[in-house]
Amino acid sequence: MIYRTEKDTLGEVKVPVDKYWGAQTERSRKNFRIGSEASMPIEIIHSFGFLKKAAAHANYKFGLLSKKKRDIISLVCDEIIEEKLNDQFPLVIWQTGSGTHTNMNINEVISNRAHVLTGGVLGQGKSFIHPNDDVNMSQSSNDTFPTAMHIASYKKLIEKTIPSIKKLKETLKKKSKLFQNVIKIGRTHLMDATPITLGQEFSGYFSQMDHGLDSIEKTLDHLSELAIGGTAVGTGLNAPKGYDAKVTEYICRYTGFPFKIAKNKFEALSSHNAMVESHGALKQIAVSLIKISNDIRFLASGPRSGIGEIFIPENEPGSSIMPGKINPTQCEAIMMVCTQVLGNDVSISMAASSGNYELNVSKPLIVYNFLQSSQLLADACTSFSSFCVKGIKPNNQRIKEFLDKSLMLVTALNTHIGYEKSAEIAKSAYENNKTLKEEAIRLGYLTEEKFEKLVNPSKMI
Amino acid sequence: MIYRTEKDTLGEVKVPVDKYWGAQTERSRKNFRIGSEASMPIEIIHSFGFLKKAAAHANYKFGLLSKKKRDIISLVCDEIIEEKLNDQFPLVIWQTGSGTHTNMNINEVISNRAHVLTGGVLGQGKSFIHPNDDVNMSQSSNDTFPTAMHIASYKKLIEKTIPSIKKLKETLKKKSKLFQNVIKIGRTHLMDATPITLGQEFSGYFSQMDHGLDSIEKTLDHLSELAIGGTAVGTGLNAPKGYDAKVTEYICRYTGFPFKIAKNKFEALSSHNAMVESHGALKQIAVSLIKISNDIRFLASGPRSGIGEIFIPENEPGSSIMPGKINPTQCEAIMMVCTQVLGNDVSISMAASSGNYELNVSKPLIVYNFLQSSQLLADACTSFSSFCVKGIKPNNQRIKEFLDKSLMLVTALNTHIGYEKSAEIAKSAYENNKTLKEEAIRLGYLTEEKFEKLVNPSKMI
Amino acid sequence: MIYRTEKDTLGEVKVPVDKYWGAQTERSRKNFRIGSEASMPIEIIHSFGFLKKAAAHANYKFGLLSKKKRDIISLVCDEIIEEKLNDQFPLVIWQTGSGTHTNMNINEVISNRAHVLTGGVLGQGKSFIHPNDDVNMSQSSNDTFPTAMHIASYKKLIEKTIPSIKKLKETLKKKSKLFQNVIKIGRTHLMDATPITLGQEFSGYFSQMDHGLDSIEKTLDHLSELAIGGTAVGTGLNAPKGYDAKVTEYICRYTGFPFKIAKNKFEALSSHNAMVESHGALKQIAVSLIKISNDIRFLASGPRSGIGEIFIPENEPGSSIMPGKINPTQCEAIMMVCTQVLGNDVSISMAASSGNYELNVSKPLIVYNFLQSSQLLADACTSFSSFCVKGIKPNNQRIKEFLDKSLMLVTALNTHIGYEKSAEIAKSAYENNKTLKEEAIRLGYLTEEKFEKLVNPSKMI
Amino acid sequence: MIYRTEKDTLGEVKVPVDKYWGAQTERSRKNFRIGSEASMPIEIIHSFGFLKKAAAHANYKFGLLSKKKRDIISLVCDEIIEEKLNDQFPLVIWQTGSGTHTNMNINEVISNRAHVLTGGVLGQGKSFIHPNDDVNMSQSSNDTFPTAMHIASYKKLIEKTIPSIKKLKETLKKKSKLFQNVIKIGRTHLMDATPITLGQEFSGYFSQMDHGLDSIEKTLDHLSELAIGGTAVGTGLNAPKGYDAKVTEYICRYTGFPFKIAKNKFEALSSHNAMVESHGALKQIAVSLIKISNDIRFLASGPRSGIGEIFIPENEPGSSIMPGKINPTQCEAIMMVCTQVLGNDVSISMAASSGNYELNVSKPLIVYNFLQSSQLLADACTSFSSFCVKGIKPNNQRIKEFLDKSLMLVTALNTHIGYEKSAEIAKSAYENNKTLKEEAIRLGYLTEEKFEKLVNPSKMI
Repeated sequence: MIYRTEKDTLGEVKVPVDKYWGAQTERSRKNFRIGSEASMPIEIIHSFGFLKKAAAHANYKFGLLSKKKRDIISLVCDEIIEEKLNDQFPLVIWQTGSGTHTNMNINEVISNRAHVLTGGVLGQGKSFIHPNDDVNMSQSSNDTFPTAMHIASYKKLIEKTIPSIKKLKETLKKKSKLFQNVIKIGRTHLMDATPITLGQEFSGYFSQMDHGLDSIEKTLDHLSELAIGGTAVGTGLNAPKGYDAKVTEYICRYTGFPFKIAKNKFEALSSHNAMVESHGALKQIAVSLIKISNDIRFLASGPRSGIGEIFIPENEPGSSIMPGKINPTQCEAIMMVCTQVLGNDVSISMAASSGNYELNVSKPLIVYNFLQSSQLLADACTSFSSFCVKGIKPNNQRIKEFLDKSLMLVTALNTHIGYEKSAEIAKSAYENNKTLKEEAIRLGYLTEEKFEKLVNPSKMI
Repeated sequence: MIYRTEKDTLGEVKVPVDKYWGAQTERSRKNFRIGSEASMPIEIIHSFGFLKKAAAHANYKFGLLSKKKRDIISLVCDEIIEEKLNDQFPLVIWQTGSGTHTNMNINEVISNRAHVLTGGVLGQGKSFIHPNDDVNMSQSSNDTFPTAMHIASYKKLIEKTIPSIKKLKETLKKKSKLFQNVIKIGRTHLMDATPITLGQEFSGYFSQMDHGLDSIEKTLDHLSELAIGGTAVGTGLNAPKGYDAKVTEYICRYTGFPFKIAKNKFEALSSHNAMVESHGALKQIAVSLIKISNDIRFLASGPRSGIGEIFIPENEPGSSIMPGKINPTQCEAIMMVCTQVLGNDVSISMAASSGNYELNVSKPLIVYNFLQSSQLLADACTSFSSFCVKGIKPNNQRIKEFLDKSLMLVTALNTHIGYEKSAEIAKSAYENNKTLKEEAIRLGYLTEEKFEKLVNPSKMI
Repeated sequence: MIYRTEKDTLGEVKVPVDKYWGAQTERSRKNFRIGSEASMPIEIIHSFGFLKKAAAHANYKFGLLSKKKRDIISLVCDEIIEEKLNDQFPLVIWQTGSGTHTNMNINEVISNRAHVLTGGVLGQGKSFIHPNDDVNMSQSSNDTFPTAMHIASYKKLIEKTIPSIKKLKETLKKKSKLFQNVIKIGRTHLMDATPITLGQEFSGYFSQMDHGLDSIEKTLDHLSELAIGGTAVGTGLNAPKGYDAKVTEYICRYTGFPFKIAKNKFEALSSHNAMVESHGALKQIAVSLIKISNDIRFLASGPRSGIGEIFIPENEPGSSIMPGKINPTQCEAIMMVCTQVLGNDVSISMAASSGNYELNVSKPLIVYNFLQSSQLLADACTSFSSFCVKGIKPNNQRIKEFLDKSLMLVTALNTHIGYEKSAEIAKSAYENNKTLKEEAIRLGYLTEEKFEKLVNPSKMI
Repeated sequence: MIYRTEKDTLGEVKVPVDKYWGAQTERSRKNFRIGSEASMPIEIIHSFGFLKKAAAHANYKFGLLSKKKRDIISLVCDEIIEEKLNDQFPLVIWQTGSGTHTNMNINEVISNRAHVLTGGVLGQGKSFIHPNDDVNMSQSSNDTFPTAMHIASYKKLIEKTIPSIKKLKETLKKKSKLFQNVIKIGRTHLMDATPITLGQEFSGYFSQMDHGLDSIEKTLDHLSELAIGGTAVGTGLNAPKGYDAKVTEYICRYTGFPFKIAKNKFEALSSHNAMVESHGALKQIAVSLIKISNDIRFLASGPRSGIGEIFIPENEPGSSIMPGKINPTQCEAIMMVCTQVLGNDVSISMAASSGNYELNVSKPLIVYNFLQSSQLLADACTSFSSFCVKGIKPNNQRIKEFLDKSLMLVTALNTHIGYEKSAEIAKSAYENNKTLKEEAIRLGYLTEEKFEKLVNPSKMI
């Protein structure tokens, strides 16, 4: 590889000749060879695009930056947002915990790209735009990185996670209505219990998604708070008064989202309360989805030696050795996703608790896990909805079989003959392998007529 | 020990002669010798007191239970609520996952205690009140236990956790105001940074508590939903129409809290979404408190070889071997509490995800951990507030020393001489062990006068 | 309550007149009203009994303590070990993170009890035995508390946890042999798969316990390392040379266990590596038990609408509303225990990672969770073994039904007619609701004779 | 994109014309658009290379596969191992939980690549090698995927993780020796304590790594067990007797590692005990590294307002706004890595506990997290060792300052004048801002001469 020489306050560094990044990026790249390259989520880079553009416009408004500088910075930011410079951000999340290296990566790329856009040659001469003095003007990594974290996370929730969960929720609701008359055996402790409709079961799933969505939405307000304007330690040193409001205004304009100034910038830099809160809601969704997908795969189990009350779509051959096998693969995939989200929640909580003094230095880790969870949940909900839930059909024959031979219909007799006699009927039916009716009559507790009137699954739901 | 004989549908059981519980409680006591006795939280028992009383009144309203039965059940419930029967509930949480054994423990104690209150002799004759047919009338463990979970948890949050957190929050706020003029060095990455006031630091802590309280409060609505009326599988079999509303109305009356009917009873029995949501908010508080208490103990560290910027109260001799040592014990205690809460969150999330079909069978575990977290946080916040935060004082001398020799005041020069020259000044001051001013002048970048005008900590906050 | 006055280096304190503890214990009791009283595990107190006795004997050997003092300290320690003074240790785990308060609680109780035993009156005159200078001689909380942690934890594993797991393991092994000829359908992805014997399934459970036990045992060596002799920071200041070996020798003698000197005392005070390691093994066991108990409850599910391949003992009536219901309660209890252990593992890991410089200050939390996990697992394994696994019986009729109608027996044809034709047979049998044999013949791939020769479950296991 | 048509038992599928994969891979690719493409770790693919080659050779040995087929399969496997076909494996980990799709991806690529290597044209005609009947001969996804998991994980630990940890351990040991005479203040509860040497502190770090390495190594035996030979449910159906031993023998030969047959194949398919065990040891290492890196960054904090007892290398400019700032970035990076490992441990434990009956279906998730942890720890240990620990130097001047003014040297007087008088000296020195010596003399407890003899830091370590 061919290199050019770049410089920062620590001295000279060799940088790949065709890359826009500078000395500090290169130092990080060399000093942090941890995991695969470029693991810093690209969503963070794009969020910095919005942020640096807004910052430049605000600096111009405050008379700190020339119109020309503003426009060229803005131009490069647009390229970043449009994903044209994606290959210029090689850093990993396992870098400095403030994300400074990534902030500088952005600053350097903007500076050098501006140099080229204004006719300069990469590596020759000084850029018209200084990475610190211009691009980073009135900012610090300590307020820009958490701002980018919130932009990226908020955007992901709004654009991906929430719509996908809604989609799944609606599919569950539709199924719930469709199945409202499918009376089946209920199960508690895995054991046969009193009847329920398949629609009622799905209404429970729907309601879990509904409550979960509510939870996510309630966290959005906190997540919409931006740290920008706090600069190094939250005091806003080196930023003009009103800078926070102005930058936030521009970010709202560019992203279309209702961001606002952080209530308290000291908190915004040193803790990641809002990320913990929002990810807590994602974890709640994950907890629900494990229950739901688990139920669905058990209800679909068989085809002959399982529960088999529902059919799920046959999407792939199930086995490399057992011909004709179909497996609940979508359920398994989403369960793995949710298990990942539960682990991520632990990482995020620990990381968020580990800040000291004016700064939390687990920022890249927190946002990495947050974005992973929110993207995976989004994708998995869509996949689960489209390739599994949408195609679920009741196995009416099997459902009827189970219902007919259930012993727990006896519960309907409690209010007529009492718990103890009812229990006696159920136990003796079980032991003698008889129906409840047969035993009820044999024991002399009810006439056939009376039994049939009282024990009617369609009235027990 | 002397025993009497009790009976249930599985046969006879010997029960300690002086205890009100019956056969099913005794079976559980013998079959689940796991951990210390009576680990089922007493708050659950008391919540059942409210619930069984409300249930009896509702059954009476619906014409299912006689006035006499209602009143005697009600009387025993009042004894339970007034903690007079606390020693009648010997069961552990490591029992059946539906909490059925505890529901039956309550049913049996009410039945037998009613027998005695109405002139019967324990173990002789049948009680006027049947544990299943009367006390449990129109109910199932599957809807009563989750109802008791929500009553106990909601009550704990409102009566203990929230007031304690508020207390701590107010103490932090007071300190923040008190310390608003104490200018000190800021620290990011643990390294000296630009100035901040001690009040600003405490405002960050306050804000964390404030956001956390918000989060808890946002979960209360969901937590106020009661499962009662769902009976065995959520369909409400064997409960009269409107029973849920009536029982809930009475529970509200007796507890004074605004409970309401669960939106979806199938969800309410089979998942514990609301518990996950509320505990998620407690976890968020815990995450914040780890950060805050950690900061306080580091700021108070020393007395001579640490940071030492604040004094915390000297509550106990610190060491059994090192005379005169004082330790940040309140910080340590609350950090342990918070670490426990983070572990509890994992247990609760896993447990809540493990339900199958119509029932979650980790109910006792979930509520045990929830109540532990909420009680410990309540106690720890009160303790931390009273015995630590309230007594914090700034060590003005030390604070001034650090501020005077800080190198990061150089940041104020960025906007005047640029980042690179500023860095040069800082580095050479550090290497030559000089002040910034000395080096700024020596390097010829600023006059003394100019330096003093620009680098003024009181203008940097 | 009546009080007497006690004194420590911070001044006077009122102490309940009838209690042996002194000023420092009382300070902690008042300053840490967090959770229920006396939550410090009694096993830690007893371990301190062994330790303080050993320490006194070693101090005597080194000529630092008189024979008379040694003997009276020793006498009180025996009372502690024999559980005669259990009510003298009122402190909670949520105290100072070094456990200093509990160390002082022990020191004070020994001092005051010695005073009484030697004819003194509690609260009058000075004890012959000084809590710090005599009982704590050559020690610090910083080495005694971790020593007590290891003694208590090691003892619990050897005396309770390991024997219980072994018992369960042996029961599983016995069942595995008993069930070795019970051929049944296997299930992968919850779906019908090729045959297996019930004994093979249980051999897998046995093997999991076997590997888990191995893991626990491999950690014992590390756990047997004692911190004693490190005193305040690990250097052993104020302890005579060889003190560590001598105390350890006595502890081995008194407890009967092969403890040894910590390889590195700086590590032993500042980290809790061995606790993390051993609890990791407990967590591994918990992970296995969740799988095993989950399998058992699913295999026993029904009785009519579940899998129902095995019977588990009927220990309690299962439902307060559904008569005749029997639930897999032992499975549920052990699953809750294991879920608790997984949460505890997170707390312990976080706590162990949080040490600073020369000391970890989450010691009480770590040992509390460790002892809870090890005790609960011990009790739950015994309970699960005795009340569930031991009584498991195959439901031969059901097992045969499932096996007969299985489609996955087709797998045996792969090696004869290839995967694709085999799949065709299975799919068409499923769709036409026929047997494999019928379809195999109809499709012309095999004669009846050939089919019967090849597809024989008893040769497929 | 141009497509060709491929077929499996479910019908036809369009596949990109230039790719070797077939119908089943393509189905998975379309049905599981979850997270970024090709997230299945490449190490798993390479491990399958070894495995499929070994399987073919074993099948040949048993007379089941022709030499020609063996050799062509073998040839493609070599290409896979040599990373020539890396772009042929597009699947994600969020697929079926058995990893069947990836097993089929391998089978299909080998089949189609063999077709081309033997002169065929992709998409035209049938390959000489059938993906199921030849490549997958005598195997199932259910035994191959866990085999690949163990090969990949074992290989990673041996080749990457263990050497890196050893490297860090040796660097710590070297530093420990180098610093053995640097006497400094110790700190417990963050508060000044008795002296210690910097070398002793580092010996504690070394010892933590040493114990942690031991723990990892003790798990290798379990991890070396391979599931191969179990086929679909552990019984080994369709594999010849002795197949497990033969395949394992070849895998050992090709990889150079001492793998062996799983003790119990039912366990090997249905649980992931060994992965839980080994990752538990990685978690233990992570716990230690958090403590160590945290200590190092606190000891290096400052430069003027922190502890500042050590210097760490200045690798990058620390701040985008504060000129001249140097941060403990390597410490932060490794702490984030370790926090990730703790979260991964939760995911792995949950996933491993979630198996049902004959199969665990969270396999891809488990191995993904395992490989992430082991790779990140490897990289981070190397980075931390090279860029941080190696360059650590004591700040002798600061260390001396702290030591000279420490009050905890008073501890040395305990054994001479008792704990209480010593405490009095310390407290009055602190309050009067004097040295211990001054106060000791003033209080008349010791002469200057005596004091100097007794209080000598170099004798206190």
